Amino acid sequence: MSTDYKFQGWLGLDPESVKGKMVWQEYEPKPFDDNDVDIKITHCGICGSDIHTLRSGWGASDYPVCVGHEIVGHAVRVGSKVKGIKVGDRVGVGAQSGSCLNQHGDCEACADGLEQHCPKNVGTYNSRWPDGSKAYGGYADYWRGSAEFVLKIPDAIPSDEAAPMLCGGITAFSPLTQHGAGPGKKVGIVGIGGLGHFGIMGAKALGCDKIVAISRTSGKKDDALKMGATDFIATDESDSWAADHAGSLDLIVSTVSSPKMPLPQYLQLLKLNGVFVQVGAPEDIVPGFNMFALIAKRVTITGSMIGSPKEIQQMLDLFAEKGVHTWNNNVPMTEANKAVVDMVDGKARYRYVLVNEKHLK
Amino acid sequence: MSTDYKFQGWLGLDPESVKGKMVWQEYEPKPFDDNDVDIKITHCGICGSDIHTLRSGWGASDYPVCVGHEIVGHAVRVGSKVKGIKVGDRVGVGAQSGSCLNQHGDCEACADGLEQHCPKNVGTYNSRWPDGSKAYGGYADYWRGSAEFVLKIPDAIPSDEAAPMLCGGITAFSPLTQHGAGPGKKVGIVGIGGLGHFGIMGAKALGCDKIVAISRTSGKKDDALKMGATDFIATDESDSWAADHAGSLDLIVSTVSSPKMPLPQYLQLLKLNGVFVQVGAPEDIVPGFNMFALIAKRVTITGSMIGSPKEIQQMLDLFAEKGVHTWNNNVPMTEANKAVVDMVDGKARYRYVLVNEKHLK
Repeated sequence: MSTDYKFQGWLGLDPESVKGKMVWQEYEPKPFDDNDVDIKITHCGICGSDIHTLRSGWGASDYPVCVGHEIVGHAVRVGSKVKGIKVGDRVGVGAQSGSCLNQHGDCEACADGLEQHCPKNVGTYNSRWPDGSKAYGGYADYWRGSAEFVLKIPDAIPSDEAAPMLCGGITAFSPLTQHGAGPGKKVGIVGIGGLGHFGIMGAKALGCDKIVAISRTSGKKDDALKMGATDFIATDESDSWAADHAGSLDLIVSTVSSPKMPLPQYLQLLKLNGVFVQVGAPEDIVPGFNMFALIAKRVTITGSMIGSPKEIQQMLDLFAEKGVHTWNNNVPMTEANKAVVDMVDGKARYRYVLVNEKHLK
Repeated sequence: MSTDYKFQGWLGLDPESVKGKMVWQEYEPKPFDDNDVDIKITHCGICGSDIHTLRSGWGASDYPVCVGHEIVGHAVRVGSKVKGIKVGDRVGVGAQSGSCLNQHGDCEACADGLEQHCPKNVGTYNSRWPDGSKAYGGYADYWRGSAEFVLKIPDAIPSDEAAPMLCGGITAFSPLTQHGAGPGKKVGIVGIGGLGHFGIMGAKALGCDKIVAISRTSGKKDDALKMGATDFIATDESDSWAADHAGSLDLIVSTVSSPKMPLPQYLQLLKLNGVFVQVGAPEDIVPGFNMFALIAKRVTITGSMIGSPKEIQQMLDLFAEKGVHTWNNNVPMTEANKAVVDMVDGKARYRYVLVNEKHLK
């Protein structure tokens, strides 16, 4: 294939960009090296992180930014040292594009297979490669980065469904496997959105006994049951939901967070030795709580961040085997600004995917 | 031995009792049954829980209360079904005096050897036995309760040193063993008091590589180093302590809690997969924090509450073997009111022990 292509994409130039003001522009990718892959992008999911970054919600972003880290397409250029990927393969990349790979033998995270926690982690966007060049994401025509974080997509999973799995999917799925979700376990998923719907479907794919979808209202109850939830709690529609379900769950994966989150009540839902995992990083602090909630039942609060390439591959293989289907809303790449605004307005059911139609041919 | 003795002790009649107003009175113990032991009390440690309970700090107490759950003395009456304890044995009891013991086969806590988390847990004071009679603690001449929670004290440990180990000791020690403290591990202990001094000495007994005592000021630095700390952080005496020691610890045991605790900074001290354990139940809520602190490094916040009889026995055996000595201030039982006031005023260095001098003969 030709390598005569331009890197062009939707750039956010300032925090206003989140209001439908990204601009389509050309930009300079990192210099191609022997370990790199170029992807001709066909699909890119819209992740909450994209919104946080466009508006500098997690701190000042390194504008211009090209967001998007749920990228699927075809490999069009493959470095000479890359193994396992060849030109033409259907591949994807998630929220991480580089790490130290423990080359110096002193990285505990990479040595433990937790590359996403490597101190030299390179994010897929709003980040810098070791040479100082900027990392650009997938609201674009092409993507370039390290092959170590590029995965082949199983044939059974269509590209538009695969894209959101690469960040949203693994973010909700990894804590389930980390904390033993499976037969005999009772799991709660807080928030039914891009992450939460993968949490419910992931818990079902893993064979959990009980899957409780927890939302403020019952507006998404029917959807949650279709995704695989066995029970539903609408926290705004009952005064006694925490007491009614106290001590019933082994694990809660919380995909939402706000200063108003009823954290003490969520903790009340857990059994002895139960675990509450926060995923999806909030911009705000959560409310304080009395530590007695943790002491009385050895309950744990912890967090989880995306997943390693190995975990993503295992998830894709399981989802392919179990026939897990993303609930996605496809939007032409040309309408990315509108899709971002709709995402901010909470209209996704449950993940927007940008489709680069000119690359589908 | 004679069973012709009266149950008398220091009773708190209302929240004012914490201000030196406990009264010495006779009270009615539970009816003696075949599984019970009566202890002629020689020593009783003063625990922070006693203070919380006397002033109804954890909710309204069931007055009259006789507090004290670090009790050592001699068995003077032993029920016919009791095994392993005979009249005359030097024994002790900590903060728990009863549980369901999984008699009905449906108690996950007791089945897992976590009797202290049994829903039918009977506290040593401010609690009720299954028959409805009140449980009274150790600021007293005699104690009566289930033998299952009465332990023999190793010969190598004097009674005044053993008493505080039964609650303060195990509260700080159990989370160390739960979370893998030992050779190769770096541990922080927040707060150098009754609990914290056992945390430092316990971490040393377990062979931890690094033991960092964390206090607001350096006032207790010399003491902490004598206890076994290898490093010291005075949080009020540096603006950069959290950054200076970021990512250096595997485990933090926090023995103090207040609305002012710098929880985000404590979390910053932890490595990837690090664990923060709160022990000692506060009356106040801790401040809110940004969950990103947990997400970025898979850090865990959890709690721990006293320990099971088996854990207490293991701790006593280790402390006997390693020559761990409680730092205690002995006070005559007759001066319990003054000792409580001094405890509230933070004068303990590091644990007050009431000595029932008339029972030493």
